[in-house]
Amino acid sequence: MTSYDVARVAGVSQSAVSRAFRPGLSVSAKTKDKVMKAAKKLNYKPNAIARMLITQRSGMVAVIISSISNLIYPELLSRITDQLSSRDVRVLLFTLDEKEQLAELLDQIWTFQVDGVIALTAHFDHEDIARFEEHNIPVVLYNRQVPDHPANTVCVDHEQGLKQLVDLLVAGGNRRFLVLSGPTESDVANERRIIALRHLSRHGIDEVPVAYGDFSYQSGKDCFARWMKDHDAPDAVICSNDTMAIGCIDEARDGQGLKVPEELSVTGFDGIHAAFWTGYDLTTVRQPVNQMAKAAVDILMERVENPTVPPEKRVLAGSLFKGSSARS
Amino acid sequence: MTSYDVARVAGVSQSAVSRAFRPGLSVSAKTKDKVMKAAKKLNYKPNAIARMLITQRSGMVAVIISSISNLIYPELLSRITDQLSSRDVRVLLFTLDEKEQLAELLDQIWTFQVDGVIALTAHFDHEDIARFEEHNIPVVLYNRQVPDHPANTVCVDHEQGLKQLVDLLVAGGNRRFLVLSGPTESDVANERRIIALRHLSRHGIDEVPVAYGDFSYQSGKDCFARWMKDHDAPDAVICSNDTMAIGCIDEARDGQGLKVPEELSVTGFDGIHAAFWTGYDLTTVRQPVNQMAKAAVDILMERVENPTVPPEKRVLAGSLFKGSSARS
Repeated sequence: MTSYDVARVAGVSQSAVSRAFRPGLSVSAKTKDKVMKAAKKLNYKPNAIARMLITQRSGMVAVIISSISNLIYPELLSRITDQLSSRDVRVLLFTLDEKEQLAELLDQIWTFQVDGVIALTAHFDHEDIARFEEHNIPVVLYNRQVPDHPANTVCVDHEQGLKQLVDLLVAGGNRRFLVLSGPTESDVANERRIIALRHLSRHGIDEVPVAYGDFSYQSGKDCFARWMKDHDAPDAVICSNDTMAIGCIDEARDGQGLKVPEELSVTGFDGIHAAFWTGYDLTTVRQPVNQMAKAAVDILMERVENPTVPPEKRVLAGSLFKGSSARS
Repeated sequence: MTSYDVARVAGVSQSAVSRAFRPGLSVSAKTKDKVMKAAKKLNYKPNAIARMLITQRSGMVAVIISSISNLIYPELLSRITDQLSSRDVRVLLFTLDEKEQLAELLDQIWTFQVDGVIALTAHFDHEDIARFEEHNIPVVLYNRQVPDHPANTVCVDHEQGLKQLVDLLVAGGNRRFLVLSGPTESDVANERRIIALRHLSRHGIDEVPVAYGDFSYQSGKDCFARWMKDHDAPDAVICSNDTMAIGCIDEARDGQGLKVPEELSVTGFDGIHAAFWTGYDLTTVRQPVNQMAKAAVDILMERVENPTVPPEKRVLAGSLFKGSSARS
């Protein structure tokens, strides 16, 4: 039983049958109905192989995530999965923990014949993007860019979000700062740290010390504890993400006996669920994750449909959330 | 370029080539080396279609998860992804939020030709399991069982864990209880509630009130707030999972002004990361998630290899974690 048999019974072209079974592709409701009735009559169920041979599509998109110790990943993954599901496309999951493994991971991805890739993590350079072009597989990068190479990216506006955050902290009387950054291997960590320091400098606040964690709760806790061994408490700690900020708050309260925000302001970035738990109520910059996930999927699927559409960069504004973890 | 060409150059049988490219299947290091060298020489890279035709395997396992408002899901997914990755098998993600959608979701799964399925959510009945048998696709259920039908399952020992938890609470002088249960559609919620009530009853504590949430932080918060409108505070709240317990603690402290544990004991179940954050330090029963994920993958892949292996049930003991959220 082939797509041609279905086409004959449905009284439509084979290409109409192919379109009807192609995930994420529009076909008139009337045609789809005819095809589905014929398929049912003939007990025709295209399996993965048949569907791929018919449509040249697998109906799968690879999503590259990092370890879940940074709590933003599961939230992003959930949003992206929802967006792809609504287009009948499934997520094939790839986990990357070290930059060195990217080439190997891409080799894996090619063998699965995915329709596209969304990368929530990893540093992509010129050559990595070239490999995607070579394989004719579109890729969208989330919150990261490729130096000197056009690429599809969706980013939160770090510049605008961190400007608002720093202005708020300075207006609240915070003067002595500590920046608790993610690791230097991370593009996101570097961007957030550099922008925060630049905006502090515009307020005349220079030589701000930086401590480095790995975006995890435990690293937020440990970094702040280590800092406090040899230093007085700063007025405010600007953390590169919410997960570290939560760790920093727990260490400040339970380890150092500091009142937050009376004796220490702590801020995050991302707007993860736990940031809004009343036990933390973080002052943070919220990524518009729903809109960003939708943008990433829209950009990707447009290029799956039509590979000639040029690379696109979308920057969405974050929103400053004034919680009770910082004097402002 | 086909697997036969590679076999000829490598000086091995075609079936050896097929085995070398089959995810999760062992082949001698020497043979694999020969095959890979020949494949490289011939620039042979089996794509998904070729690999499926050769091996009758897709190298993909479908994992069914629920919405992430219950924080245990991303942690389980991460562990299972790691276990499958170590066998070169990838996770194809399916999200299920309502029981009614299970049949439809299974229809989707069949078309992807996955090698097996791990279900972290959903209620499976006799007929659902029969459909898996019909499609010759093995399935492993996580923390759930099928009444009157043999099925592969991995479960934490709810009975033993909750007995220890209830004994601890009673020993700590807690007498008036509230059970904060997950929804009645959830097998896990029902099992945990019924067992907790039974153990309380063995201590002569009967007619314990039950409030129902949906496993989310917000529902833990809201349920406890609603309860407190018309009632005095109980001595202890036994929550069906950690995420609700955290919501209950936040409402107790910030909404009701109760000291935890001095004025209210709160317990959870699961042992999610946030349970051990010092801001909560939950008394809970920890699922051995690493071992359970490994068991689920072992059971599944054994049946992918050999479909005649009979269904198996493994029950792993949880461990009581005595945090500071409960008088004990």
